[in-house]
Amino acid sequence: MTSATSLPVSPAAPDLAPRLHALRERMARQNWQAVLVPSSDPHLSEYLPERWQGRVWLSGFTGSSGTLLVSSTRAAVFTDSRYWEQAEAELAGSGIDLVKLEGSAVLAYLAWLEDLALPTTPAPTLAVDGAVMGLAQTQQLRDALGSEGWQLFTQLDVLDGIWPDRPCLPTAPVYEHTLPHAATSRAEKLAGVRAQMHDRGATHHWIATLDDLAWLLNLRGADVEYNPVFLGHALVTLDTVTLFVGEGKIDAALAARLAQDGVTVRPYSEALPTLAALPADSVMLLDPKRVTWGLRAAVPTGVKVVEAINPSTLAKSRKTDAEAAFIREAMERDGAAMCVFYAWLEQALGREHVSELTIDERMTAERAKQPGYVSLSFPTIAGFNANGALPHYRATPEAYAVLSTPAGLTAEGLLLIDSGAQYLGGTTDITRVWAIGTPTAAQKRDYTLVLKGTLGLSRMRFPQGTLAPMLDAVARAPLWAEGLDFGHGTGHGVGYFLNVHEGPQSISKAVPVPDMAMLPGMITSIEPGLYRPGQWGIRIENLVLNVPVTPAVPDAEPGTPEYGRYLAFETLSLCPIDTDCIDRSLLRDDEVQWLNAYHADVLRRLSPLVTGDALAWLQRRTQPL
Amino acid sequence: MTSATSLPVSPAAPDLAPRLHALRERMARQNWQAVLVPSSDPHLSEYLPERWQGRVWLSGFTGSSGTLLVSSTRAAVFTDSRYWEQAEAELAGSGIDLVKLEGSAVLAYLAWLEDLALPTTPAPTLAVDGAVMGLAQTQQLRDALGSEGWQLFTQLDVLDGIWPDRPCLPTAPVYEHTLPHAATSRAEKLAGVRAQMHDRGATHHWIATLDDLAWLLNLRGADVEYNPVFLGHALVTLDTVTLFVGEGKIDAALAARLAQDGVTVRPYSEALPTLAALPADSVMLLDPKRVTWGLRAAVPTGVKVVEAINPSTLAKSRKTDAEAAFIREAMERDGAAMCVFYAWLEQALGREHVSELTIDERMTAERAKQPGYVSLSFPTIAGFNANGALPHYRATPEAYAVLSTPAGLTAEGLLLIDSGAQYLGGTTDITRVWAIGTPTAAQKRDYTLVLKGTLGLSRMRFPQGTLAPMLDAVARAPLWAEGLDFGHGTGHGVGYFLNVHEGPQSISKAVPVPDMAMLPGMITSIEPGLYRPGQWGIRIENLVLNVPVTPAVPDAEPGTPEYGRYLAFETLSLCPIDTDCIDRSLLRDDEVQWLNAYHADVLRRLSPLVTGDALAWLQRRTQPL
Repeated sequence: MTSATSLPVSPAAPDLAPRLHALRERMARQNWQAVLVPSSDPHLSEYLPERWQGRVWLSGFTGSSGTLLVSSTRAAVFTDSRYWEQAEAELAGSGIDLVKLEGSAVLAYLAWLEDLALPTTPAPTLAVDGAVMGLAQTQQLRDALGSEGWQLFTQLDVLDGIWPDRPCLPTAPVYEHTLPHAATSRAEKLAGVRAQMHDRGATHHWIATLDDLAWLLNLRGADVEYNPVFLGHALVTLDTVTLFVGEGKIDAALAARLAQDGVTVRPYSEALPTLAALPADSVMLLDPKRVTWGLRAAVPTGVKVVEAINPSTLAKSRKTDAEAAFIREAMERDGAAMCVFYAWLEQALGREHVSELTIDERMTAERAKQPGYVSLSFPTIAGFNANGALPHYRATPEAYAVLSTPAGLTAEGLLLIDSGAQYLGGTTDITRVWAIGTPTAAQKRDYTLVLKGTLGLSRMRFPQGTLAPMLDAVARAPLWAEGLDFGHGTGHGVGYFLNVHEGPQSISKAVPVPDMAMLPGMITSIEPGLYRPGQWGIRIENLVLNVPVTPAVPDAEPGTPEYGRYLAFETLSLCPIDTDCIDRSLLRDDEVQWLNAYHADVLRRLSPLVTGDALAWLQRRTQPL
Repeated sequence: MTSATSLPVSPAAPDLAPRLHALRERMARQNWQAVLVPSSDPHLSEYLPERWQGRVWLSGFTGSSGTLLVSSTRAAVFTDSRYWEQAEAELAGSGIDLVKLEGSAVLAYLAWLEDLALPTTPAPTLAVDGAVMGLAQTQQLRDALGSEGWQLFTQLDVLDGIWPDRPCLPTAPVYEHTLPHAATSRAEKLAGVRAQMHDRGATHHWIATLDDLAWLLNLRGADVEYNPVFLGHALVTLDTVTLFVGEGKIDAALAARLAQDGVTVRPYSEALPTLAALPADSVMLLDPKRVTWGLRAAVPTGVKVVEAINPSTLAKSRKTDAEAAFIREAMERDGAAMCVFYAWLEQALGREHVSELTIDERMTAERAKQPGYVSLSFPTIAGFNANGALPHYRATPEAYAVLSTPAGLTAEGLLLIDSGAQYLGGTTDITRVWAIGTPTAAQKRDYTLVLKGTLGLSRMRFPQGTLAPMLDAVARAPLWAEGLDFGHGTGHGVGYFLNVHEGPQSISKAVPVPDMAMLPGMITSIEPGLYRPGQWGIRIENLVLNVPVTPAVPDAEPGTPEYGRYLAFETLSLCPIDTDCIDRSLLRDDEVQWLNAYHADVLRRLSPLVTGDALAWLQRRTQPL
């Protein structure tokens, strides 16, 4: 066959009507005119434990980002362009509208509420669970609502009592991230955080974000899919740490080891009561972007709050040399797994049943064979042709594209695979696009323009401290030149055997703040893309490490053009980039040189790790252009 | 001679000691522990009427940007890298320190105040004239001081009574900017501003910034050097305008014409009393970035203030098609004047006395011959060799470099000329660097890297609405690649027969705000540079116009890669770029093509306007590379 077979979406869709009805009954009892259900949890996680997936439960929209607004008569999901197609499909027939977010979400909520044309005396109430809403976001929402005559109510969990079999808190055990991979000790990390507390005059510091918690204590868990974190809070003082975590998740042996570093384990449920009981002369270092409205509200009046980014957030973004060495090793393992997988894929096409699901399974299986493998770092995106145009697509048993059959039929088109894994020594995330059959001229042009964006930014050098968003235009320039663009960010920070998305740096159109300064040791993705709805999608993604460039004039004076330190990107991800899909006439010689040098490096580093078909595939796919 | 002769700085330096002494006596009487004297006036002008040049009078530092802080024992000028060399020279022997600003000015002030180690009970007082300090800046200063135990006093002019012959308010007459150049009528502009007042529910709007005032009323003046503006305020209501301006500056005939548009003229001194007497039910549209602390404080409590950017600031940044046509004509006139000047310069070198001062005089004289010429738009910067390394250098009769003598000696090196003029139909600003003699390999490399930055950004296409600072990295990338950078912004907005620096857009490292979105009709400079202190300076600057690009797919859907409108830069400035100084090996073919096309355009448009030597020079200097 010449094109992919897409089966229609036919999930065993639950009946949402009784759920919304139950919510609206509660709204009527409470005299709430509207309810907002965000994608969030008490730790502001990106991937949510099921307990806090109320928006999915109520609306049926399963995208990882989106907000549900419900009034007595209407309901709508607000989400950005990455999810529009998916949301349209999943919301179809539900009676829930899709609001396509392009600018400020808060302004969009306001416009929707205004459209309800409710009487403004007494002021109508929007209810939201303050325990899961970010502090800054809630402040902004409250102020905006106030100017339109609405009031915000945050004191209750809006889903309480209406979700009969609501999932409980996850109970996966917590384990230790150990040597050699956890190359910096818990004591050393705590000393660093305490030095910053001391500098800011803080006696206490509260950590609610799970990646900060896991990093600081060299602990890992499995409470959130793909992210090796566990639910908890930490209260750090200048000589103690209280770790609040679900009972039974930390065994006695681990508790004893933690105690050696001054860490006391207490039940998760005691976290906010402990916070609320802090003595009034405490000085609390708190990150306003990394705590919820509800948590901030629990800080007793009298406690002085010093607002600053979590010291651990900046510290963990800067990988140590020891970590970088393990990450390079993980990248080689990850690359070797991909060689085996792609060698299989090439020979399987036209001979076996190959679908987006098979691809996910086989690639995951190859990664799982690698030493140090723990789990995937996010759900594999294997999108063929039109499915690749959905940046957050995931094939399901109900709907997937078939690439080839045992009868010898093979589809033609572009296959996008965005995948990654958690290893004890690092987190990977890579996207490649492959031509199945002969790509068209239009596909090659799109592919080459995206590749120029990836190359252009990968080769960039820039002063240390440059705000990451200021680099965004460099990756987009080749697309912009042709009147093309993509709707997502160019790059995100990546953790060390931690979340595949971590801050503070972000190469995006986000308004830069000083926390986004590029510093040595940070790892960021570079992933421009191009999406033709209904046709194909392209994204070429590598992870890059900020490495200092030796200055040409080491001790240049302020005011001279050589003054200051510079960073370059070391490309960490190791996997061939499909050269069959390149329109050579669109690449400059210097771009081809970069690509050839990258392929030579991939060959040199992966060939010792693979044999047979995989080695042959690697050698063929790294031929210079 | 082979290098420029720089005469030593020997101004008839006034004795500053009695001035600082008088200020300190007043400080003691008022019990002020420190005084801050900014570069500012009641209209937040960049170029200050002499009356508000108190910082120059007190410190002797004449740079256009810098702040003086004085305590009972110490004094310091705070300024950024553009002015460090100049400030060091001008402050030498004055007992006033130079503080080199690199980050936040407010934090630098705080650190300096803390170094004084004054007792904090009672809280020490920093005095500043609130009537000339920007609102946001003062708020920030007050908050920062508060956290360090200082208090801010803003109610008095700190220079009152200590500056014996302080200059009075300027008295130059106000005149009308008329047809055909003032292509949009006063009535039309007022209607636009009032539509925005109406949209925001405002009954009143106060304009304190001089360029907004001049633009809105199609008036011009000569109160501020180089900027054709006049001191005044305007109070705009939905049907009236009150213009506050010095008595005698507007004659009866002009007043009568203004009256036809509902504009009443009142004395300048009545402005703040009128503001203070507004009825309490007024709703005032006020731009917090474009009023002083003192003006904001004069708004009566009870008047509701709606904060937003001045409608005129955004409107005037977007030049109309009619204005753009006049600007192109002005650029041709400006270019023709430069051809005549440069043709003279080339033949004069080695035959006549040529110095930086001669260059300023001759170039100004050629511009002044052009139809529509009004004045320079800023002081000409003609900097030879080391002087070119000072981005804001100005040759003076006391200190200037000589390039050639009648005896036939000619210096070798790089000559940087940054100059521009006010024409009735537009404002120009252009920088060129010329090799005098044979440039060295190092000079050619520096020159070519800067040129790559100018070209790279000039060729950029980007989505309408892109925040101007996000383009900054594109101009710096070729320098950054070699570990080089420059300390000033890449580009500033430019007025229409108005200020050569105008907002809101700015291509710089400034943290972007939504007002900085690139929109059709905006004019911005592109001017990367490279400065070798003591050796040479390079800057290659053109003005560019934001022009819409016809979309490849006119009605592309949201979510498709072609969605949205794009802008390109039309290069407005017309003058050859020295190709003798280019290291061809550093330019790519596509860059050479752009340069050749630019030179062909310059030749085509300027050759009808010049004859003889100037035409021959133009033809020679626009030869393709």
